[in-house]
Amino acid sequence: MEPLEYLKEQESDSLEQLKEFLRIPSVSAQSKYKEDMQKCAQWVADYLQDMDIKSEVCETGGHPLVYGEYRTSDDAPTVLIYGHYDVQPPDPLDLWKTSPFDPIEEDGYLIARGATDDKGQVFAHMKGVEAYLKTTGSIPVNVKFLIEGEEEAVSNNLDNFIKNNKEKLSADIVVVSDSAQYGIDMPAINYGLRGIAFVEVRVVGPDRDLHSGSYGGAIANPVNILCNLIGRLQDENGRITIDGFYDNVYTSTEWEKEQFAKLPFDESEYLASTGSHRLHGEKGFSTLERTATRPTLDVNGITGGYQGEGAKTIIPSWASAKITMRLVPDMTPEEICDKAEAYLQKICPDYVTLEVTKYGGCNPVQVPTDSAWLDAASCAVESVFKVKPFFTKEGGSIPIVETFKTVLGLDTLLIGFGQHDDNAHSPNERFLIKDFHRGWRTSVALFQELSKVKG
Amino acid sequence: MEPLEYLKEQESDSLEQLKEFLRIPSVSAQSKYKEDMQKCAQWVADYLQDMDIKSEVCETGGHPLVYGEYRTSDDAPTVLIYGHYDVQPPDPLDLWKTSPFDPIEEDGYLIARGATDDKGQVFAHMKGVEAYLKTTGSIPVNVKFLIEGEEEAVSNNLDNFIKNNKEKLSADIVVVSDSAQYGIDMPAINYGLRGIAFVEVRVVGPDRDLHSGSYGGAIANPVNILCNLIGRLQDENGRITIDGFYDNVYTSTEWEKEQFAKLPFDESEYLASTGSHRLHGEKGFSTLERTATRPTLDVNGITGGYQGEGAKTIIPSWASAKITMRLVPDMTPEEICDKAEAYLQKICPDYVTLEVTKYGGCNPVQVPTDSAWLDAASCAVESVFKVKPFFTKEGGSIPIVETFKTVLGLDTLLIGFGQHDDNAHSPNERFLIKDFHRGWRTSVALFQELSKVKG
Repeated sequence: MEPLEYLKEQESDSLEQLKEFLRIPSVSAQSKYKEDMQKCAQWVADYLQDMDIKSEVCETGGHPLVYGEYRTSDDAPTVLIYGHYDVQPPDPLDLWKTSPFDPIEEDGYLIARGATDDKGQVFAHMKGVEAYLKTTGSIPVNVKFLIEGEEEAVSNNLDNFIKNNKEKLSADIVVVSDSAQYGIDMPAINYGLRGIAFVEVRVVGPDRDLHSGSYGGAIANPVNILCNLIGRLQDENGRITIDGFYDNVYTSTEWEKEQFAKLPFDESEYLASTGSHRLHGEKGFSTLERTATRPTLDVNGITGGYQGEGAKTIIPSWASAKITMRLVPDMTPEEICDKAEAYLQKICPDYVTLEVTKYGGCNPVQVPTDSAWLDAASCAVESVFKVKPFFTKEGGSIPIVETFKTVLGLDTLLIGFGQHDDNAHSPNERFLIKDFHRGWRTSVALFQELSKVKG
Repeated sequence: MEPLEYLKEQESDSLEQLKEFLRIPSVSAQSKYKEDMQKCAQWVADYLQDMDIKSEVCETGGHPLVYGEYRTSDDAPTVLIYGHYDVQPPDPLDLWKTSPFDPIEEDGYLIARGATDDKGQVFAHMKGVEAYLKTTGSIPVNVKFLIEGEEEAVSNNLDNFIKNNKEKLSADIVVVSDSAQYGIDMPAINYGLRGIAFVEVRVVGPDRDLHSGSYGGAIANPVNILCNLIGRLQDENGRITIDGFYDNVYTSTEWEKEQFAKLPFDESEYLASTGSHRLHGEKGFSTLERTATRPTLDVNGITGGYQGEGAKTIIPSWASAKITMRLVPDMTPEEICDKAEAYLQKICPDYVTLEVTKYGGCNPVQVPTDSAWLDAASCAVESVFKVKPFFTKEGGSIPIVETFKTVLGLDTLLIGFGQHDDNAHSPNERFLIKDFHRGWRTSVALFQELSKVKG
C-alpha cells in the first residue's frame, strides 16, 4: 500500500483520533488544567511511540514537551517538525456553539478549541509520518518531532530546552504548520517574518500633578512633550525619522516583489475587515509590502494625567508610552532600541527628564528564497492543492523561528494549513476538514520532496 | 468708640466666635453633613441679624446661601461681599494634628478645616461691619452679603440665584476675600484672572484594536496621530499654533508690566516647590507673566491602547486627550474652542476620524487698573499692613467673579488675607491669627475708603 492510499483509508478514523486529541483540555495558561497538560503530552508521546517513533515526555520547568525521533539513514536529510499541543483558554464559553472540548463537525468544519491552533495542524504531520511507517515501514527523511506545551503561555522554557539540546535537535530544516493559507484553496509558504523591538518611554516633569491655572505657562507639560516626541518619530510620508533606522533594512529582490505582486488583494474588503475608512502607510509601497517587508513604529498604549470623567485641570507629573517597532532583515532589536533611545534623547528638551526602557525583542527571519528546501516545499504543496503556493512574508513575529535560526542555525518552512477566519484564539475555533486532509497529504509529499534535497 | 478700638477690644472674643463658626462641619460635598450645612447657614444669618443686618437663609435647590443687607443711604456706594461658609471634606483625617472641626491655636495659627478657606476670611468682613454698627451705628457704605454653601462642591445653583436676583444683588463693586496674599506681610490685590476653555479630542481609527504585526504599516495608528496633532499645537518658542489663537489677547499695559516687575520671584525656590529642574514657557515673558498674563494649552490627560504591565502589540482603535487652555482678556471660551477644533480638523489626516467635544469654559476677568475702587482698596490695605499691596493677576479661574461681571456688570476686588501655605484643601488647614486681625481691620478701612469713591 502507498502512504497516500493509507491516508485515504484512514480518513474517518483519523478524524476520530484528532477529536480524541482535542478532547483533552490542554490549556497551558490556567493552572487548573495542569494534569490535562501532562495527560495531553503523554497522549502525543504514546501516539508517536505506537508507530515506532522513539518518543519521550521531557520536563522543561514548565509544562512538558514531547520529543520524538525516527532515524532513516545518515544520508537522508533531517527534518525537525515543530508544533504545540497546548491551546488557548476557551473563554468566553457562552459564545461557543458547542463545548470547546467536545468537537463537532459542521458545514465541513471541525469545531473545537485547538482545532487549527495547533492540534489539527501538528496532527497532520503525525499522520503523514504514520502513513509511511504503516505502509513502507520507513520515512524518506529523518524526522524529529518537537511538540511543546507552552506556546500559548509565552514561556521561555522552550528556548532553554533548545539551547541545552542542540545536538539532539540538530537537523537540516525545520517545518512549522501553525498558521494560515493565503485564503481558501490558496496555499502559501511563508519565507519571512518581521522581528520586533519594544521600548517604553516616560517623560517626567514636576514631582506631582500641578494646578494648570497656577503653573500653566511656566512648567513644561510632560504629556504635551511626550506627544511632541512621538509626533516627530514619523514624517508625512510615513517614514520613521529615527537616525539610522533604515540603515540595515533589507531590500526586497525582484523575485520577492513579483511574489507580492501576485498576491490577490481587495482593498475594500481589507478596509471592511479592519473598520478603517482609508489605508495609510509608507509612501512607495503596497499595503502587503508595508505589512511584511517594511519596518514600522506603533504606539501600543499611552497614558498620562487624568483620564476619568469631566475635567481635572492639572499639569500631569509624567506621561508614558509603550512603543513597538516591527523589524525586517537585517535590523536587530538591540540596534533599533539603541537608535530609538538616542534619537528620543536627542530631540527631547532639557526641561523634562526622559526615561527610555529598552526591552529588546526578537530578530526578523528571512528564509533564503533560492533554497532547494523552499522549492521542495513548493512542489509538495502543488502536488496536493493542484495550484502553486503563494510565497508570502508575515508581518508578525514567531520568536521560536528566530531561535531555530540563531541557536540551531536552521531555516524554517512555514506551511500553514489553516485559514485566517479559523477563529484561532476566539470562540468556535475551527479547521476545515478538507484542509486537515490536504495537510497530511502535503506532509507525505513534503517528506518525499525534502528527501531529494540532500543525498 | 472708634470701630478699630472696638476690634482691639474684641480680639479674643472674636477668635472664640470664629472657632464656633469653624466647629460646624459644613462639608458641602458629602451628604452626611446636610444638616450641618443648614445649621451653619443659620449661624451666619443669625450672626448678621444680631447686628441688625437684615438677613435670610435662601434656598437654592442645593445647599442654602445666606443673604444679608444693610442700607446706609442712597448716596453711598453699595458693596457686595461674597464668601462661602462651606468647606472642603476633611480627609485624610489621620494627617491632621487636631480634629478638623475642633480648632486649636498653635504658633500664631488657628488650625481647623475652613480656617482660611473661607470662614476666617469671610468672618473678617462680618466683624468689619460689626465694628461700625456696634460703635457708630452705621456703615459708611451700603453692604450686601452673599455667603454661599456650594463653593467647594462646584454647583451651578449660585449662578441661577444671581441671574434670578439681579435687582436684589445690584451693587457698585464686589469684594471677595478667598485667596492668598503674595507672601507673609506682602498683601496683594488681584486685578485679573485667567479664563479657561476645555476640549476633549478623540482620534478614531480601526473599529477594534488590531494586531500590530499583521496590520502595522498599513493602518494608521490613532495614538501616533493624536500625538502628532498635539505635538503640533505648540512651536519651539512655546507659542500656540492654533490659527487666530492670539487674535484677542490683551496686551499688558506699562503699569501692569511694572507691577509684575515689582513682584519678588526666586526661581530656585519656585523650581523646588514644583519638583521641576528647569522652567519653560513662552519666549519673551517672565515666569510670572507667563502664568498670569499669557494664554496656555495643557493636556490634562491622555489615554489610548494598552496601559498595563508588559507589552501588548496592538494598533489601538482610538486615543483621546483632555485639553484645557487658559485664557486672558479678551479671549472667550467659545471662540477658542471653535478655533481649536478648526485647527485640529485642518491638520488631522483624512485616514482617521477626529472628534472634538467642546465644553466651553469661563471668560477671563480683568478689573480696570485705573479704577478708583482699586485705589481705594490699595489705600485700605496700606493703612493696615503699612506697606503698599502688590498688584497681581491670577493664573487660575474663579468662575463666580466672571458671573458678577457678565450678569451683574460688576468688577471684583480680590483681596486675599490668607497665605499660599495655609493648606487650603489639605490636612491642617490654618490661618495666621495676625492675618485674621489684619483682615478685619482692612475691612473697616476698606468700607471707609470705598465710601469716598462715589458721593
